[in-house]
Amino acid sequence: MKKEAGMAEGRGEIAGYEFGMESVGRSPLGLEDLELLKQTVLFGEQDEEHLRMAGEVLEDQVEDVLDVWYGFVGDHPHLLRYFSDAEGQPDTEYLGRVRQRFGRWILDTCRRPYDQEWLDYQQEIALRHTRDKKNRTDEAYETPDHIGLRYVVVHLSDHGHHQAVPG
Amino acid sequence: MKKEAGMAEGRGEIAGYEFGMESVGRSPLGLEDLELLKQTVLFGEQDEEHLRMAGEVLEDQVEDVLDVWYGFVGDHPHLLRYFSDAEGQPDTEYLGRVRQRFGRWILDTCRRPYDQEWLDYQQEIALRHTRDKKNRTDEAYETPDHIGLRYVVVHLSDHGHHQAVPG
Repeated sequence: MKKEAGMAEGRGEIAGYEFGMESVGRSPLGLEDLELLKQTVLFGEQDEEHLRMAGEVLEDQVEDVLDVWYGFVGDHPHLLRYFSDAEGQPDTEYLGRVRQRFGRWILDTCRRPYDQEWLDYQQEIALRHTRDKKNRTDEAYETPDHIGLRYVVVHLSDHGHHQAVPG
Repeated sequence: MKKEAGMAEGRGEIAGYEFGMESVGRSPLGLEDLELLKQTVLFGEQDEEHLRMAGEVLEDQVEDVLDVWYGFVGDHPHLLRYFSDAEGQPDTEYLGRVRQRFGRWILDTCRRPYDQEWLDYQQEIALRHTRDKKNRTDEAYETPDHIGLRYVVVHLSDHGHHQAVPG
């Protein structure tokens, strides 16, 4: 069941942010899979507590984190190209919309309960990096149709890094 | 071109360790891709130097690292199952052969030049976690035929963790 609260919270505020909405499919993974994954990386209650603390610290620094990240991407043509058309022209509207969702993602990562609804939205985010769903949310069809998995994987560790040292 | 040195070094010492051998295919990625990936995670010469230092520190502690890792896997049925048959019986020969290659992987990760030959072998290692090649090297056909990508991804960070704090 999708919560009404999640729908109201996401709708209208941030374009394409669909946390908790009906449009988001079910993750192929359930809470039992998540629990096993947590065990595998020794992620426990203390880590959840630390994430919540990080969320409090970052709450008013999200724009700074995004400035660092967007600066980094802007300085690296091989990353900026995922937001650019075949001529290398960046799609500023696409960049701007992703930026808003990214800011929300930082706080969600720190503050959300890691429940099925959260898991479902991680799946949605993942799909938006693949040929299935990249570009659709923002109608940015002139940009590359997917992001190579190697960039998604290292990118996740990169997010973690910038969250740990936000500026 | 595969180097003779690499072939001689790998052959015969460790079962299934094929670094630099003709049997290893070409990675779909080249050195230019690797360079871009390094830039993406800000991996520079200093990091290479630190890895080499880690290699010196770890050289005589590899078995301790493996003890920690195998202890952890042995304590978690959802991980041990990848080395076990359908009845849950671990394949000790398979575990033992992987352990030898894993020890060598730790040192290779620290000490090898990150060249095309290295890249090719990372591809081979990756394939050995998929339906394409898992179990073939050790004829461990009774164990699961692949490892879910989520475990491969978190596992890599886990390796890093255990290397950083090798018990």
